[in-house]
Amino acid sequence: ENILEGKPVVYRQIVVPQPGPKEYCTDSGLVVPSISYELHKRLLSAAERYGLTLERRLEMTGVCASQMTLTLLGGPNRFTPKNLHQRPTVALLCGPHVQGAQGISCGRHLANHEVEVILFLPNFVKLLDSWVTLLFSLFISTDLPDTPVDLIINCLDCHENTFLMDQPWYRAAADWANQNRAPVLSLDPPVSGQGHAVEAKWSLSLCLPLPLAEGAGRVYLCDIGIPRQVFQEVGIKYHSPFGCKFVIPLHSA
Amino acid sequence: ENILEGKPVVYRQIVVPQPGPKEYCTDSGLVVPSISYELHKRLLSAAERYGLTLERRLEMTGVCASQMTLTLLGGPNRFTPKNLHQRPTVALLCGPHVQGAQGISCGRHLANHEVEVILFLPNFVKLLDSWVTLLFSLFISTDLPDTPVDLIINCLDCHENTFLMDQPWYRAAADWANQNRAPVLSLDPPVSGQGHAVEAKWSLSLCLPLPLAEGAGRVYLCDIGIPRQVFQEVGIKYHSPFGCKFVIPLHSA
Repeated sequence: ENILEGKPVVYRQIVVPQPGPKEYCTDSGLVVPSISYELHKRLLSAAERYGLTLERRLEMTGVCASQMTLTLLGGPNRFTPKNLHQRPTVALLCGPHVQGAQGISCGRHLANHEVEVILFLPNFVKLLDSWVTLLFSLFISTDLPDTPVDLIINCLDCHENTFLMDQPWYRAAADWANQNRAPVLSLDPPVSGQGHAVEAKWSLSLCLPLPLAEGAGRVYLCDIGIPRQVFQEVGIKYHSPFGCKFVIPLHSA
Repeated sequence: ENILEGKPVVYRQIVVPQPGPKEYCTDSGLVVPSISYELHKRLLSAAERYGLTLERRLEMTGVCASQMTLTLLGGPNRFTPKNLHQRPTVALLCGPHVQGAQGISCGRHLANHEVEVILFLPNFVKLLDSWVTLLFSLFISTDLPDTPVDLIINCLDCHENTFLMDQPWYRAAADWANQNRAPVLSLDPPVSGQGHAVEAKWSLSLCLPLPLAEGAGRVYLCDIGIPRQVFQEVGIKYHSPFGCKFVIPLHSA
C-alpha cells in the first residue's frame, strides 16, 4: 500500500535562487544544493523572526550533533553497561561565537551520556552565569589536553571574523588538533577559503550546506527545524531531504 | 580494547530517595525506578534553576518525541523519496497545558519531516502570537478529524488539573481516540489513577518514569538533558540509562 503507482520520483526538490558552486545528494539520490553564506544568514534571520530563537536552535543543534558524535564514538557497541568504566573522551575546541555555543550545547548532551568532555576555551572568554550552571558536567580548560582523546570536535571557526585565525589561542588549538591522532568533526564550518585551519574527517552543516573545501572531510547535514514556509520567504523552494532522520550524510553530486 | 576486565557490572545505577511502586529496566538490564509526581516536579524545578528552561525542554522533548513517532510510522521504509505522495497523517490532541505544548513542539518537527499533522485544540485556547508563526505547517482544528489517520498522539492530560477530564472538549477527544482504529502514543502521561481516559499503545515518559497504569501501554523513556548534578540536588543518585540513545524502551522489572 506504500508503493507509488506511476508518478515519477522528483529528485530535485530543493531549488535555490542562486545555486552555489557545489551540489550534494543524499543516500536516496535527492539533490541538495549548496547556498552562499549570505543566503544562509538571511535564512536564519527569517527563522528567528518566526520564533525559532537562537536558544531553540542551540538546543536542537546540540542534540543532533551529539547524536552524530555518539554514533561516531561507536554507538550501541561502545555505550553498554559493561563498558561504563571506559568512558570515551572528547576534546571540544570552542571559539567565542555562536559556533562555539553550538559546540558547548553538543558537549553538554555528550556529558549527560557519560562521555568525558574536555572543553577548551580561550582564556579571555567570560562565561555567562546562566551558562556555567549548564556546564558543570564538562571539564573546562584553557589548556589543551595532553592525554589521548577519542574524538576532537572543532568549533573554532565562525563564518565572519576570520581575524580570529591569527590569534595565538586559535593557532595553538588548531596546531594541536592537526597533530593529534584523533579524528576531527567540524561543527558548522565556514565556506571554502575561510577558516578550516583544522583538517576534518567529518563536517556537520546546518539546514543547507555551504560550499565546503576538501579539508572539511565527509559532509553531513543537520535538520535544525526550519519550516518550509521560512525557506520560501528567502526564495528557496524546499522539501525536507531528511526523511525520518535529523542528520544525514551528503555526497558530492 | 573496549572489554571490561574483572569489574562487575552495576545494574542499579539510579537510586531514588523514596522508590515508587513500580520499577522498570532497560534492554541492557539497567534498573530504572519510578518516582512520584512530586519528586518529578522538584526535579524539573531544579533543572530550570540551572538554566534548563521550559523553552529548551520543549524543543528537546519535541525533537525526541518526533524521532520516536517517525520510527513508529515506519521509519526509513516509509519515508523515502518514492513515497512522498503518500504522507502519513498524525492526529495530535493537545490540552491547554505544558503537555499540550510538548505535543505541539513534536508536531512542528513532524510537519517539517513531511508528516501531515492535524492539531486538535479546544476552541477556548488562544495561541500566543509567537507560537502561531511556529505552527504554520500544522493544520489547526477545533474539530476532530473525520478522515483516517495513521497515528494519534495524546497530549490531553496534564499532571494536576484532573477537572479538565470532565469538560466536553476532553470527553469528545478522548472518545474519538478510543473509537479510532489508529494506535495511540501518549506523551508524558500522568501517574496511574489520574487521567488516562485514552488507552495508549505506547507512552513516552520524560527523564524518569512515573508509575504508569496498564492503559499507558508500552513505556518509553526520553532523555531531556538533565545533568547528574541536578538529580543529586533532589536526592537522586543518577547515571544515564540511555547509552547512545535519547529514547529507550522500558520493561516492567
